[in-house]
Amino acid sequence: MSDDASTAEEIMAGVYRALREHGYADLTMQDIADACSKSKSLLHYHYDTKEDLLVAFLDHLITTFERRAAAGADRPATERLAAFIAWFGFDPDETDREHFHIALLELRSQGPFNDRIRSRLQRSDRVFRGTVAEILEQGIEEGTFEPVDVQETAALLVATLDGARTRQITLDEMDVDGDTYTRTVARTVIDRVIDPMLAAGVELPDVETVEVLLPRDEPVSIAPADRMDGREA
Amino acid sequence: MSDDASTAEEIMAGVYRALREHGYADLTMQDIADACSKSKSLLHYHYDTKEDLLVAFLDHLITTFERRAAAGADRPATERLAAFIAWFGFDPDETDREHFHIALLELRSQGPFNDRIRSRLQRSDRVFRGTVAEILEQGIEEGTFEPVDVQETAALLVATLDGARTRQITLDEMDVDGDTYTRTVARTVIDRVIDPMLAAGVELPDVETVEVLLPRDEPVSIAPADRMDGREA
Repeated sequence: MSDDASTAEEIMAGVYRALREHGYADLTMQDIADACSKSKSLLHYHYDTKEDLLVAFLDHLITTFERRAAAGADRPATERLAAFIAWFGFDPDETDREHFHIALLELRSQGPFNDRIRSRLQRSDRVFRGTVAEILEQGIEEGTFEPVDVQETAALLVATLDGARTRQITLDEMDVDGDTYTRTVARTVIDRVIDPMLAAGVELPDVETVEVLLPRDEPVSIAPADRMDGREA
Repeated sequence: MSDDASTAEEIMAGVYRALREHGYADLTMQDIADACSKSKSLLHYHYDTKEDLLVAFLDHLITTFERRAAAGADRPATERLAAFIAWFGFDPDETDREHFHIALLELRSQGPFNDRIRSRLQRSDRVFRGTVAEILEQGIEEGTFEPVDVQETAALLVATLDGARTRQITLDEMDVDGDTYTRTVARTVIDRVIDPMLAAGVELPDVETVEVLLPRDEPVSIAPADRMDGREA
């Protein structure tokens, strides 16, 4: 990896850490500099403004997701769909991921007022829905899924999983049948929406144990020392 | 209505207007005072802090929703469920409602860090899911719905409709089959989740034309002059 590419990845990892520690609203370039042990002037050398840096960070997240989704594209469609659902899930003790997603929620609320942020949110939406639509098309081709409108189904699944995640991180409780929001909703959307789409005899792999492959939100370059909490990269 | 109750309602209407105009992050007591033509000292006489006022506003929203949901409880379950789905829908030109919900999204992102706000978000979640669960129980009793797990179904519907709304207001575009996110997801969740729950021969009323009854987010006391844009109260 070139020095520039390595510096860029270190900075991206710093944005991730700074967002989860400070949130979006009060985030400063100094917070990000501290989080990646760089000087503020080095950050400004690479990114003129904090907005430039956050826009680059969103691009980085989306590109990382796309690359990892493509890397798993040789798996069966049922396994890929189970992995996509699992990717949205949260365990109640994943406080770091929760704080990161809360910061993303704050950032998303800037969508209507900031063209550059909104265009990345729209790109991310197209990538998510496109990934699900492609998985469904693959399954229909393989004969594991019955033919369905893949665009509408993708919009439904993305809205449902995103909604469950937003409710779980903002409510911060387990009270849906004693389980988390994301787990309850994942189980129910599988029962009601996905199982009826599967061809006879086909089963979806267990969402709790399927290999996710997709990035667990953080940039891939995060140093091993930061992963000692047991989460996969 | 007593003077105090009337003042409280005017202040709540002011919070609604101020949130949709200024957002949550930068909102000041002065903004709210201006929005309801009261003095800042009058606001502080009734509410010690801005947080007290926002917590009272959330309670007011939830109580208004509960009262209106109860008022429609004599309608058939299919009509009540269609109204609940319609209530989450957005037309692309409803900019005021969109801005209000963006402000609510910012406020929701405070959930993990503010016990009083989080307890209201949790109450709101219980009320939403409880309303859907009660509608489904009524439908099962009436024989218009097949027996289902009402708690799980309620969690799925609330997460799905909330997720579609959040995506629509943050992405601010119509690109799912040329339709809005909320409309595409509502149509798909009806096709895939609700229609299969209906007893033979039963149809869900049209979500586009059903009478909503539920409050269109704004406090009920908003003066008629503010509703000249044609939205129902």
